[in-house]
Amino acid sequence: MDDPVLLTGAGGAVGEAILEGLEEDYYWKLLFHNPPAEQPNHEYHIGDVDNPDDVREAVEGVGAIIHLAGDPRPEAPWDSVLSNNIDGTQKIYEAAVEAGVEKVIFASSNHAVGSFETDQRTPEMYRPEDDFRLDGTEFPRPGNLYGVSKATGEVLGRHYHDKYGIKVCNIRIGNLTRGHPPIDYERGQAMWLSYPDCAHIHQCALEADYEYETVYGISDNDRKYYSIEGAKEALGYEPQDNSAEWQGDEKVVGPDA
Amino acid sequence: MDDPVLLTGAGGAVGEAILEGLEEDYYWKLLFHNPPAEQPNHEYHIGDVDNPDDVREAVEGVGAIIHLAGDPRPEAPWDSVLSNNIDGTQKIYEAAVEAGVEKVIFASSNHAVGSFETDQRTPEMYRPEDDFRLDGTEFPRPGNLYGVSKATGEVLGRHYHDKYGIKVCNIRIGNLTRGHPPIDYERGQAMWLSYPDCAHIHQCALEADYEYETVYGISDNDRKYYSIEGAKEALGYEPQDNSAEWQGDEKVVGPDA
Repeated sequence: MDDPVLLTGAGGAVGEAILEGLEEDYYWKLLFHNPPAEQPNHEYHIGDVDNPDDVREAVEGVGAIIHLAGDPRPEAPWDSVLSNNIDGTQKIYEAAVEAGVEKVIFASSNHAVGSFETDQRTPEMYRPEDDFRLDGTEFPRPGNLYGVSKATGEVLGRHYHDKYGIKVCNIRIGNLTRGHPPIDYERGQAMWLSYPDCAHIHQCALEADYEYETVYGISDNDRKYYSIEGAKEALGYEPQDNSAEWQGDEKVVGPDA
Repeated sequence: MDDPVLLTGAGGAVGEAILEGLEEDYYWKLLFHNPPAEQPNHEYHIGDVDNPDDVREAVEGVGAIIHLAGDPRPEAPWDSVLSNNIDGTQKIYEAAVEAGVEKVIFASSNHAVGSFETDQRTPEMYRPEDDFRLDGTEFPRPGNLYGVSKATGEVLGRHYHDKYGIKVCNIRIGNLTRGHPPIDYERGQAMWLSYPDCAHIHQCALEADYEYETVYGISDNDRKYYSIEGAKEALGYEPQDNSAEWQGDEKVVGPDA
């Protein structure tokens, strides 16, 4: 991707992981919801994703969009996800089509499929001896209204892809933490996404050639209930991290142990 | 279903077909968007589905909801489907859970899968010699933003079913016309839903025992690219009509020919 890349939701954790890993690799344009605490090293805008003028200005001149902006709270109330996540994502696609953007990478979420974690399946499905696995061919089963908004973002992408040919990759992001995997939280360990793997999967999605994909974005954890085969095949994703190599905040296996 | 049934969007064509066929079979409660031209024979309310107070009042005391209300135009603009169709459907589910409603039947649409009708497939897929068929196990591919709103209604139902146990049936309604099938419109003939079959499938959905279903609502047309097997199996649907029995507005095959 030689053209500038717009990163929306640049002030969030996923945006932070992406910029830390890929700062030098792209000409970035950043969209913040609130003024950033520190002056960014890149062109940036402050605006609301559900404001068409803000979005049009941010999208102008970019070749791809990594769309992270939205209310990130799993417990976010409906009104907030309706405007920030659903309406905001439609505005991004509308502006992308208008500006001739080639590709949109959409931050979907594990919460789009949260209801597969039934009382019958948990907590066993978080553990190595269990073999339940989702591969992205299943229908969404959102565990909360935030998850509904993410599933809706995926279907918006399907529509804009089919109608206008824009390339779309939905990444159902797991549990992103800096440094080490979540501690004392089996679910989060099974869907851990390290900062380096987060940057890497987004770079893969920027560089790979595809039409419309929905993949899981997690590290190569020993225990996982999301398949990473889709991301490997469609994007060439090669994760480097694995939550099983850690005990608490200490790495016990692998090169840095 | 012995408890009252709420019919939202009671002033529309689908509501008309349902009331004509099932007027005597249920204790109806009707929700209109605009005051009806004639005084209804049933308890009725006038209100907006995206107004929580209007919805709460309408939902009170009912055992099931047939939710038809929304902007019915395939070309409806985003702002309208966002509020009337997406937000309105969430409000219905929220009120249904609060009031302990047992079942919601949601008027989804052929437009939720409209993008399967590609330039490569059409117009051949509308014709008897073609065997392309969707069966409801495919992901939505909305052909327009109205279709996006219907796919979102389906996923809202999935969430409210998984989280609260409410029974949900999404009916992807074809092309409903009174009397005879659409004339000189192959697509509409292949997805024709007659008025009697429309009433019948909604009665089946009110009476059958299921958890969460997504079915196609069309008559038993010779040429169809939507399977009706799902509706037969899950709901016991037995359609009586077939667009192939008609030439223009005249029935040429069958009992009334």
